[in-house]
Amino acid sequence: MTERLVVVGGDAAGMSAAAQARRLRGDALEVVAFERGRYVSYSACGIPYWVGGDVGSADELVARTPEEHRRRGIDMRVCTEVEEIDLQRGEVRARDRDGGRTYALSFDQLVVATGAEPVRPRLPGVDAQGIFGVQTLDDGEALIADLSRLAAASEGPRRAVVVGCGYIGVEMAEALMRHGLQVTLVDQADEPMTTLDPDIGRLVHQAMEQMGCEVLTGVEVDGFEADGEGRVRSVAAGGRTLPADLVVLGLGVRPNTALAGAAGLPLGDSGGLRTDLRMAVVGHGNVWAAGDCVETFDRVSKSWVHVPLGTHANKQGRVAGINIGGGYATFPGVVRTAISKVCDLEIARTGLRESDARRVGFRYETVTIESSTRAGYFPGTAPMTVKMLAEHGSGRLLGVQIVGQEGAAKRIDACAVALWNGMTVEEMTGLDLAYAPPFSPVWDPVLIAARKAADQLRGG
Amino acid sequence: MTERLVVVGGDAAGMSAAAQARRLRGDALEVVAFERGRYVSYSACGIPYWVGGDVGSADELVARTPEEHRRRGIDMRVCTEVEEIDLQRGEVRARDRDGGRTYALSFDQLVVATGAEPVRPRLPGVDAQGIFGVQTLDDGEALIADLSRLAAASEGPRRAVVVGCGYIGVEMAEALMRHGLQVTLVDQADEPMTTLDPDIGRLVHQAMEQMGCEVLTGVEVDGFEADGEGRVRSVAAGGRTLPADLVVLGLGVRPNTALAGAAGLPLGDSGGLRTDLRMAVVGHGNVWAAGDCVETFDRVSKSWVHVPLGTHANKQGRVAGINIGGGYATFPGVVRTAISKVCDLEIARTGLRESDARRVGFRYETVTIESSTRAGYFPGTAPMTVKMLAEHGSGRLLGVQIVGQEGAAKRIDACAVALWNGMTVEEMTGLDLAYAPPFSPVWDPVLIAARKAADQLRGG
Repeated sequence: MTERLVVVGGDAAGMSAAAQARRLRGDALEVVAFERGRYVSYSACGIPYWVGGDVGSADELVARTPEEHRRRGIDMRVCTEVEEIDLQRGEVRARDRDGGRTYALSFDQLVVATGAEPVRPRLPGVDAQGIFGVQTLDDGEALIADLSRLAAASEGPRRAVVVGCGYIGVEMAEALMRHGLQVTLVDQADEPMTTLDPDIGRLVHQAMEQMGCEVLTGVEVDGFEADGEGRVRSVAAGGRTLPADLVVLGLGVRPNTALAGAAGLPLGDSGGLRTDLRMAVVGHGNVWAAGDCVETFDRVSKSWVHVPLGTHANKQGRVAGINIGGGYATFPGVVRTAISKVCDLEIARTGLRESDARRVGFRYETVTIESSTRAGYFPGTAPMTVKMLAEHGSGRLLGVQIVGQEGAAKRIDACAVALWNGMTVEEMTGLDLAYAPPFSPVWDPVLIAARKAADQLRGG
Repeated sequence: MTERLVVVGGDAAGMSAAAQARRLRGDALEVVAFERGRYVSYSACGIPYWVGGDVGSADELVARTPEEHRRRGIDMRVCTEVEEIDLQRGEVRARDRDGGRTYALSFDQLVVATGAEPVRPRLPGVDAQGIFGVQTLDDGEALIADLSRLAAASEGPRRAVVVGCGYIGVEMAEALMRHGLQVTLVDQADEPMTTLDPDIGRLVHQAMEQMGCEVLTGVEVDGFEADGEGRVRSVAAGGRTLPADLVVLGLGVRPNTALAGAAGLPLGDSGGLRTDLRMAVVGHGNVWAAGDCVETFDRVSKSWVHVPLGTHANKQGRVAGINIGGGYATFPGVVRTAISKVCDLEIARTGLRESDARRVGFRYETVTIESSTRAGYFPGTAPMTVKMLAEHGSGRLLGVQIVGQEGAAKRIDACAVALWNGMTVEEMTGLDLAYAPPFSPVWDPVLIAARKAADQLRGG
């Protein structure tokens, strides 16, 4: 008998699950996927590069269109919002946002892939025109239209304020600067990118300033002021008034789980859906969840955390889809690897920051080394900094942060694999990493850091 | 009482050992280091880039001069050849190549770091002028002088033949082309770079031809013909006569162990010195060896092999030095990671080739995937190919080969660490590798290959 799989959310996690399950079970599985927006299977991570001009259009960020999914046997329903999940009856209630029609659809298997929603501060004036989030392609489109309007209309220098100095914040600051805007970044933390330790975030701070971006850290935003037409005019922050023709909110995201929570599905401390290793929602054998709406096991801290990232969404969706499709797969957790780039500066991290390590109760040593991306004598060699945390006693690697020029940051992968396998920094000193003058000094910077950490642990 | 350490060979391995031991024991250890050439602690791997013009002078390839070693308390004797090691008496016999004086010097501890010597075929005419090896800075200097002479003297197109298509061969071919020479690469193997599988070597072959290099594979060199003044004029190969104003031999190297062998130190099947894990020569508690003159444990094939590479020489030298200095360190072996670059093409490998896997007795599956270095929509994204070998049954990773454009090859490091830890390709599909559009597709090419290999193993 044919079963029906209903998927709520048409981005990476949901559609990976849909595609896998359909591939494995073919016509024996009817797949209906709902997406409230117009686009499916797109790269939200690419939005800053689209705004900045590196990517020509929204279409380029779309991995697969609704029509392509349909050709693969998936009943893809866009602009359709699922308003209720009724677990008792085994059905969802969906609303066609264009036609306005509401209808119920029963499911045998359900995938919740509702993603994350941007944090919007409850501040005076936050709903003024000209204040943008950067979460969906529609957000990107609105922002780009506004930039064009500004370019045509304004006289004199245009100013933008970016609230929040995380990955999205610094990437958006760069994108806006490429449009000729004067950009001020504001964050309440002491240094940008709190996913890094402050001493490493400081290097990002300096780089942002060197590229001409004003960076105000340790500053709270108090509100937004609009002009007579309801358009943002300035940002009140730390007692200052920052003129702004445009504001971008980059305050991070939280799991979008209101729908799932209302249905009685279990949420963890992070607000994300709780799943087992096969991505089944805890306590619900036929309900699955994946992507930015779930919480994920962090292999280093041994805790469940919210890590919204496209690569995990794809992997988790695939795992859910294999299991729905009758196969067996588990999602093994993450080590919190992340990478970014602002102008020529590459930034990467994996594992624990010092604050994480303390919170979990690790006693640790840190080292920070300066080296170069290539042999010192090779053209194009550039400085890079590696910070490494290792556990006292065991010598086990706990985390790595890298900041540097071209070729620096992807080195985090070797560290992520070492971390994954529980290697000690002493063992890491022997790792057979690739060496040739165009690619590395004879001691790769990762090995130099491991060596210094191992020396320090022996001496301590 | 003061002990004396004698080091034979003043490049990476020997001087790392000397520096470590001296650092740990200070004035309690007298260190005398002999080097037969004029340079010490230099990067032979940098010679092709010096010849090609990326590096301005030999001095830039020198990490530490004799004088710098002396300032650190090492009695560095250059242009001094050790002619005999007498283990019975515990002394070496050295000859000052400038002064001609020969003298004996006793040792308490001895480090043999005599490196490798280039393979020179016993072919008619091989000693003609204009035929160069590329092993020492002196070789590089001679070659560069000859190129200048040619540039000044010759009329019409100048031609070079490079014999041997290994790392050095392809790097030297590129370097010579940058001098405007027409270059022909000749190798008896079916494809260039036999450190890769032939199907991957084929990609290098195509790239070399696209850059305008003639590549003759499956061709044996029969000899060299000289003109009346004793200078090479042509190369006889596979029934053809290849005109040549200059010839470079890139036929690889073998352990330079004549001195050690004559002293009765044990050599393995590869011709390299046999050491224990602390880099002590087997059966000789106070004799140590490191670098290109030793054989090294390959963690994947579980065999002892000769892997001449600067990064291993440095690590092994450091291990020997720590042990001589009274500390404890072991060299954990290698997984045979290597990386190179010819024009824009990056080439890397780790672990076993198919031929290695067969020889060792592994039953294996292979997959080859095409992907890109960055997100498909990101500017500068470029194609890359990943070939992966995994053991049948266990699913354990056995080897990886990567060929691609900028940013492709250093990904081998993540594979090398996975291999080091004995990961299966199934486990690898979950690896938390760094993703952001400027650095990777949402599925890193390494993950795509692992996923495909895992699928294939399950299906097989």
